[in-house]
Amino acid sequence: MHPLLEKKGFIIDVDGVIGRGKKPIKEGVEGVKKLMEIGKKIIFVSNNSTRSRRIMLQRFRDYGLKMNEDQLLIATYATAKFIAREKPNAKVYTTGEEGLREELRLAGLEIVDYRDAEYLVVGSNRGINFQIMTEALRLCLEEDVRYIATNPDKTFPAEDGPIPGTGMIIGALYWMTGRMPDIIVGKPSKVIMEEALRILNLKAEDVAVIGDQIDVDVAAGKTIGAATVLVLSGVTTRENLDEMIQKFGKPDYVLEHLGELVEGQ
Amino acid sequence: MHPLLEKKGFIIDVDGVIGRGKKPIKEGVEGVKKLMEIGKKIIFVSNNSTRSRRIMLQRFRDYGLKMNEDQLLIATYATAKFIAREKPNAKVYTTGEEGLREELRLAGLEIVDYRDAEYLVVGSNRGINFQIMTEALRLCLEEDVRYIATNPDKTFPAEDGPIPGTGMIIGALYWMTGRMPDIIVGKPSKVIMEEALRILNLKAEDVAVIGDQIDVDVAAGKTIGAATVLVLSGVTTRENLDEMIQKFGKPDYVLEHLGELVEGQ
Repeated sequence: MHPLLEKKGFIIDVDGVIGRGKKPIKEGVEGVKKLMEIGKKIIFVSNNSTRSRRIMLQRFRDYGLKMNEDQLLIATYATAKFIAREKPNAKVYTTGEEGLREELRLAGLEIVDYRDAEYLVVGSNRGINFQIMTEALRLCLEEDVRYIATNPDKTFPAEDGPIPGTGMIIGALYWMTGRMPDIIVGKPSKVIMEEALRILNLKAEDVAVIGDQIDVDVAAGKTIGAATVLVLSGVTTRENLDEMIQKFGKPDYVLEHLGELVEGQ
Repeated sequence: MHPLLEKKGFIIDVDGVIGRGKKPIKEGVEGVKKLMEIGKKIIFVSNNSTRSRRIMLQRFRDYGLKMNEDQLLIATYATAKFIAREKPNAKVYTTGEEGLREELRLAGLEIVDYRDAEYLVVGSNRGINFQIMTEALRLCLEEDVRYIATNPDKTFPAEDGPIPGTGMIIGALYWMTGRMPDIIVGKPSKVIMEEALRILNLKAEDVAVIGDQIDVDVAAGKTIGAATVLVLSGVTTRENLDEMIQKFGKPDYVLEHLGELVEGQ
């Protein structure tokens, strides 16, 4: 039995662990099913900043995994939850897409004109334009406006090449104003990891964090002091593993895929 | 007589010196007329990255100044000229607006799909969108694509507040890729200043550089070793002058406005 199976809960990344875009990773999906069968608590944590939980759960169903909303913590939802806890019913302006807007509204926040905003919420937007950037710029210059970003990812791999992530907007605003977000919610930030522990109702020592990127998932696990597992079914491969470890540090365990954890169970 | 009137030529900034947006600065306009009357060579140098010379000359006419194309060096035109000299008929991709595109075409360059580009030309664009940023990102990652930016300005003052400048795109690309432009053409770069000297057919010691920003105009003048004049009719004022000097250095001369140079002439 793998020593990590003594843990009570697992915080698991989505992309590169149980799927790649719309395609499931079979060993990952089967591994998660097995973990649930043997009674482990599971929560998926994703830095996705454009989709609501509702949309993401549909993707899980397409992968063949029936999860409920409590088992899915996306940067959009975690951001909305974080702000709502800090200031219930706050007036927010967001650069983000409908998925983020949906979660902000569901958390009781009011989406307002930028001139009335108490919070600037930066999330990626495939409909980004000059007006949104202008409004975000002006809010960034207001010291009393609190600035929250869903996630720090600079780029994402799309089918035909890299596309800009939320980091594009963070970088543009930083360049123009010298200001970085007051809080970044997504991995490797501990904000989203602490929310995951809260939902699991477990302590960090009782969970393992599983993902395909050392600088994102493993780093996030380390910020809360949890055991960390790197799987080689995503961005990190046998070929670049040594380079990644040298650059970003060593995970506690390295597996070919999540399924290896439950082999023989 | 002001000692600078011994100079043969003047390299003059536009915004804050002879006009603010569509409104002329009377003393500045009259000063320029006087300089021309007494036989001085004049060239205007502007970091504007969205307008062609044709469009800018119309604004000069609205100010009451009849200039010809040779007396106007804008970052759009200077960028096109720089690339055409480096590689005639080069294939270029640009993030920029029609004003920049017009100048690139007039210089004999071919505007192509990003996949075919030898040059990435970054200029501001009020129609910026996710696709343009994605294409620029991908070109930025190609080491053999030469990356030229029209100007470094991070923001511009618009009537209702600051708006993003070309620097927004430079900053976003830098954040995503770690790459800065190989060449920035506009002030304070010496690229545009050397082009101005070439057009005036004068040496740096024979000209004075006049503008309203120490970190832009005065700094540009210093890169070529010319005499520098700060006017207080634009961004820099009596109130912030000391702070600006402390931050960015000292101009050779400080005048209320350009007209002071020719008082009594």
